[in-house]
Amino acid sequence: MRPRVGVWLFGARGSVATTTVAGAAALAHGAPPAGVVTAGPAFSGAGLVPIESLVFGGHDVTDTPLSKQVERLVAGGVLPPGLDGLIAAELAAAERNLVVLPVAADQAELISRMAEDLRAFRLRNDLDHVVAINVASTEPPYEVPYDDLAVLREALRSGNPLPGSCVAALAAFEAGASFVDFTPSTSIRPQVIRDWAVERGMPFGGQDAKTGETLVKSVLAPMFTARALPVHAWSGTNLLGGGDGATLADPRAAESKNVSKERGLADMLGSDVAGQVHIDYVDPLGDWKTAWDHILFSGFLGVRMTLQFTWQGCDSALAAPLVLDLARLSALALERSHVGAMPFLGFYFKDPINSTEHSLTTQYDALVRWVQSC
Amino acid sequence: MRPRVGVWLFGARGSVATTTVAGAAALAHGAPPAGVVTAGPAFSGAGLVPIESLVFGGHDVTDTPLSKQVERLVAGGVLPPGLDGLIAAELAAAERNLVVLPVAADQAELISRMAEDLRAFRLRNDLDHVVAINVASTEPPYEVPYDDLAVLREALRSGNPLPGSCVAALAAFEAGASFVDFTPSTSIRPQVIRDWAVERGMPFGGQDAKTGETLVKSVLAPMFTARALPVHAWSGTNLLGGGDGATLADPRAAESKNVSKERGLADMLGSDVAGQVHIDYVDPLGDWKTAWDHILFSGFLGVRMTLQFTWQGCDSALAAPLVLDLARLSALALERSHVGAMPFLGFYFKDPINSTEHSLTTQYDALVRWVQSC
Amino acid sequence: MRPRVGVWLFGARGSVATTTVAGAAALAHGAPPAGVVTAGPAFSGAGLVPIESLVFGGHDVTDTPLSKQVERLVAGGVLPPGLDGLIAAELAAAERNLVVLPVAADQAELISRMAEDLRAFRLRNDLDHVVAINVASTEPPYEVPYDDLAVLREALRSGNPLPGSCVAALAAFEAGASFVDFTPSTSIRPQVIRDWAVERGMPFGGQDAKTGETLVKSVLAPMFTARALPVHAWSGTNLLGGGDGATLADPRAAESKNVSKERGLADMLGSDVAGQVHIDYVDPLGDWKTAWDHILFSGFLGVRMTLQFTWQGCDSALAAPLVLDLARLSALALERSHVGAMPFLGFYFKDPINSTEHSLTTQYDALVRWVQSC
Amino acid sequence: MRPRVGVWLFGARGSVATTTVAGAAALAHGAPPAGVVTAGPAFSGAGLVPIESLVFGGHDVTDTPLSKQVERLVAGGVLPPGLDGLIAAELAAAERNLVVLPVAADQAELISRMAEDLRAFRLRNDLDHVVAINVASTEPPYEVPYDDLAVLREALRSGNPLPGSCVAALAAFEAGASFVDFTPSTSIRPQVIRDWAVERGMPFGGQDAKTGETLVKSVLAPMFTARALPVHAWSGTNLLGGGDGATLADPRAAESKNVSKERGLADMLGSDVAGQVHIDYVDPLGDWKTAWDHILFSGFLGVRMTLQFTWQGCDSALAAPLVLDLARLSALALERSHVGAMPFLGFYFKDPINSTEHSLTTQYDALVRWVQSC
Repeated sequence: MRPRVGVWLFGARGSVATTTVAGAAALAHGAPPAGVVTAGPAFSGAGLVPIESLVFGGHDVTDTPLSKQVERLVAGGVLPPGLDGLIAAELAAAERNLVVLPVAADQAELISRMAEDLRAFRLRNDLDHVVAINVASTEPPYEVPYDDLAVLREALRSGNPLPGSCVAALAAFEAGASFVDFTPSTSIRPQVIRDWAVERGMPFGGQDAKTGETLVKSVLAPMFTARALPVHAWSGTNLLGGGDGATLADPRAAESKNVSKERGLADMLGSDVAGQVHIDYVDPLGDWKTAWDHILFSGFLGVRMTLQFTWQGCDSALAAPLVLDLARLSALALERSHVGAMPFLGFYFKDPINSTEHSLTTQYDALVRWVQSC
Repeated sequence: MRPRVGVWLFGARGSVATTTVAGAAALAHGAPPAGVVTAGPAFSGAGLVPIESLVFGGHDVTDTPLSKQVERLVAGGVLPPGLDGLIAAELAAAERNLVVLPVAADQAELISRMAEDLRAFRLRNDLDHVVAINVASTEPPYEVPYDDLAVLREALRSGNPLPGSCVAALAAFEAGASFVDFTPSTSIRPQVIRDWAVERGMPFGGQDAKTGETLVKSVLAPMFTARALPVHAWSGTNLLGGGDGATLADPRAAESKNVSKERGLADMLGSDVAGQVHIDYVDPLGDWKTAWDHILFSGFLGVRMTLQFTWQGCDSALAAPLVLDLARLSALALERSHVGAMPFLGFYFKDPINSTEHSLTTQYDALVRWVQSC
Repeated sequence: MRPRVGVWLFGARGSVATTTVAGAAALAHGAPPAGVVTAGPAFSGAGLVPIESLVFGGHDVTDTPLSKQVERLVAGGVLPPGLDGLIAAELAAAERNLVVLPVAADQAELISRMAEDLRAFRLRNDLDHVVAINVASTEPPYEVPYDDLAVLREALRSGNPLPGSCVAALAAFEAGASFVDFTPSTSIRPQVIRDWAVERGMPFGGQDAKTGETLVKSVLAPMFTARALPVHAWSGTNLLGGGDGATLADPRAAESKNVSKERGLADMLGSDVAGQVHIDYVDPLGDWKTAWDHILFSGFLGVRMTLQFTWQGCDSALAAPLVLDLARLSALALERSHVGAMPFLGFYFKDPINSTEHSLTTQYDALVRWVQSC
Repeated sequence: MRPRVGVWLFGARGSVATTTVAGAAALAHGAPPAGVVTAGPAFSGAGLVPIESLVFGGHDVTDTPLSKQVERLVAGGVLPPGLDGLIAAELAAAERNLVVLPVAADQAELISRMAEDLRAFRLRNDLDHVVAINVASTEPPYEVPYDDLAVLREALRSGNPLPGSCVAALAAFEAGASFVDFTPSTSIRPQVIRDWAVERGMPFGGQDAKTGETLVKSVLAPMFTARALPVHAWSGTNLLGGGDGATLADPRAAESKNVSKERGLADMLGSDVAGQVHIDYVDPLGDWKTAWDHILFSGFLGVRMTLQFTWQGCDSALAAPLVLDLARLSALALERSHVGAMPFLGFYFKDPINSTEHSLTTQYDALVRWVQSC
């Protein structure tokens, strides 16, 4: 019998989470699984949990009803008209599993209460595995000043030394859940957080899902390399509205994003290139994003040439099917008792954990190999 | 001791051929091998012939001096200023190996005379191998009405049943040379021509080098497939001047090109898509080419999104280093006594012989595997 | 007291007509008049009929209910969600004025029956003026072999020598209505049709509304001229779905469109330029249109430079407010007893009647001057 | 007899100045006056001084020979190959009129020495008029804390309270020369500097020539206004190399530029819009500039649409013919004894002095009217 799998979303009422929950429900009603990579034939024999049987829950700081969020996304063209009526039952079911983020005197207690929420979710829904995924807003970069588990535990008992994404990861591990970071936040970046996961025997993965501009980069940069065409400059401008845009209008949060975005390019091209990346908040774009990239390269004997691309997409609609993928793949890792980093998920991320491989095709092959390996 | 290799170019005074000869000379003078794939580390242990030691010759219908063509390409920004002076000696050496295409009463005699030119080139330059590459103008599509070697040979003795590209291929095979078609012309497309090559024990490859728009397609289409994003329409417009543009302004020649271009897309995407490809002759663009592609795809739950790209390149400067690659790789095939089709060269072509694989990364891996296989 | 004005649409159930009727109703419910030029302050003192009081009617070959068409346009994102409910009363009112195009033994009789429909519309709605506008599908080019009114009238009595757009124009004139052609069809192009209008004392205008690519051209081309920058090539590709796209997929109808599009460019630039214009039918684009233009020009001392633009718009939503403008302005012309061509409407058209002025700013000034002239 | 006119360039060895001097010489040798607006028929009867008879001189901080700069610009593709040889005599003549910027104990003395250089230039070349134009590097914004001529004069005698561009303007006025600022620097922005010009009876104009992205904006923004299409966001990214790019990589200098660029947009659209403008230094672009603009607007009933454009140009080659225009027009103003601001030159500028008119066509009409007015 297939194991029962719960998906715990940090940021459970945001656009990505809402589109994920609504989309899974739509698939159950017969919508085609566009964008769901694990729905392809290469993944069919691996015993992945069916999307229709995933159970959703999560934490959020607000309590705006999911159904309200779905209405907003329908109005913004992210979800198809009429979907809200169709999936009312599924939304209500998920709504019962959503919990407002608790407050506590110190982070030791906070982690303990959050882990309690995950355990209650597991019990209430009779789940074999719980996989946690962070889809909350991007945080500014943060340097965690601990590298020893015991010292960190001590610090947590008397204060709040960690950013929220680290707290979320630790709560997942304490509750026996895997953790994947869909964002570029701190979460599992510090070694001490990874040590904690290993101590608890849990897998973790991430970070910063590549859904648009960086996805395209991850196939174009290897093209230049394969054809031995020197790239001199790569410039990019991202225009985005919506909640994500507003967050990234804060230059400190944008910094997290940019560092992730830049990292891969030098790795793929074999050297640094000139050019900047901008992230502009353009409120009237709503949930839509436009990216323009300009690449200056040269051919034989130094002749200068250019490639430009413009990507116009809806981030939530690109992210949600990947969240479903990551939930299914995390559950498989738990089933296989995988402990520690999951570098085979690099296909999904701008800043793949424990890997400097950024070429999409190579990453895809590695993912399929892992899935088919047992 | 390294074998001595001669490169016989059909269309030896055209822009691609001239850039190839001039570029090889520039490399000998220390220019970096930008765009030469086989100059990379993955190819270093395979004993490929050094570019500096390649000897160039070829057929052409005109007798405009190579040095004139180099001047024209310098003026057009394809070759760097001052190159003409630097490589005068190399151009003069190649000039001595260029032959005006002979005329003959029937194609049997024409093939024989052309093969004689190749043999004389081999003897005069003391070559171990001769590799022939077709870089002449694209021909209109042509249906060769023969499928039996004997019948074809009979027909050649009394008339002119074949297009020029087939005649060129047969002359190469008769002279013990390999043949690679850089264009989408008929050449080695008919089975009977391939049979002839096998009878003579010669390798052949092609067709229609991917240097610009199609190169980009061959990484973008697999990206959509890998991410399970349905592509609904893929439209393209190519603007080009120069000799190539003038040829393709003839709708019948453009047809050859378009068929090659379209073939790969359906293979890579797994289904046909809407959209047309235009090739426009824009004389003032000179040797430069601009391609604009518009791709309509959908994400989760059918949300429509687009990707557009604009490629601005100089075809000759993109083609020439690939001609050098193909010369070196063909020589390796001769050295390894490879007979018949060379599908491992698919990395270079829009319409790869004996293959439906169009993904650039997969093609690259296959090429490297073959090179490193002995 | 303001005159009562009726708007008779040929092609009254198509996307443009439906968006016009629905939009006028939406304005009456408080929607802002985006895209309605005559809603601006420059037009406020001229006594133009208020949009809310326009009465709509028209001919069409089909009888699909207007409300169905509105539903389709809401689903396609052309009209805002919920609009159908809001304007049900207005749609029903217009529906009562829509008539299926009559059939007749010869075109004399057809014109007479169609004119009868317009007269009935006027009577039934107690209208002072009726303005007719052709928003039916684009016809292929057609050469009308008559230049004498009497001979034409004779021919009409015994056959069908005219394309539908000419018949529509004549029916309007017979019924005492003005006629404006929003399309590039034949309609008022022949001198004999214009003579007929003058004989009946009616004004006419057109042709081929500029709503997208050509609109942008009509400001960019004068920019190059004003700055004395020579333009060498102007290439364009238009991708469009929907009914309009399907019609233009017929190369003969596209020819009408292309001729209109090209005409202005040479006029504005002062000379012919290289480059082609493509119109591609891309079904999955629905009611949306994407145009890419590539302009090659040179600066001081012949340095080559480029400007490219991509326009992504919804034709019906761009056309409908202009139809409202043209209705109001035609009514003003009738009120002022203007007879014959209306060149002051050139601002709206790719192929402005009796004018070679294509610069948008100059056209705008001419329009405002005429409106304020009495 | 035509007056003899001298053109004094501040920044006389920079790319714009060098291209101006070299270009004027090339015109004298028969090159067509592409980009020179005043070479058009609308300007032919006004008695403008012929370009061939302009005499060039100027200040610069360096003493790199003009001929070296021309070589560099030929290598970079800004000037045509072979030009250096052709115009050697003209370059040598201009070289004799170039002076290294003097140094002085205080700015009163500096102004006096600089003015002396201009007077010497006038005498040596027997000139009737001298027109000064600032084409030096863009300065950071600067607030001049004086509004009284006497107080300013006092301050100049004991220190250096002004940025270089103001000093240059004052030196011009002291020497009886007109002054036009081609840059966004402080120069004639303060009222007290303008008062000084009026006191001396001199005309002045500027600022910040529109040569690329802003030029296109100045026709596209009025298009949206004329068609009543609401613009919601206008975003732009400018990539540029060369000396100009390096200067603007300093965020404080970029600020001057951005303020100029933004100013016009709100004026033309009638309201502020969302969106940012970026200026990125991309060294490998050399003297070339690429700008991408993304405009989000809506049509009827709020449907969202976009227009994007990419401009690829060479700034010096766009600027130089305008410098020639401004020299000829300034000389005409002197001839006509015009004193104070020259708002009729707004056609050339992003931040036109004493004007909020930014529409290119309206500005062109005003310029022609002024030229033809006597």
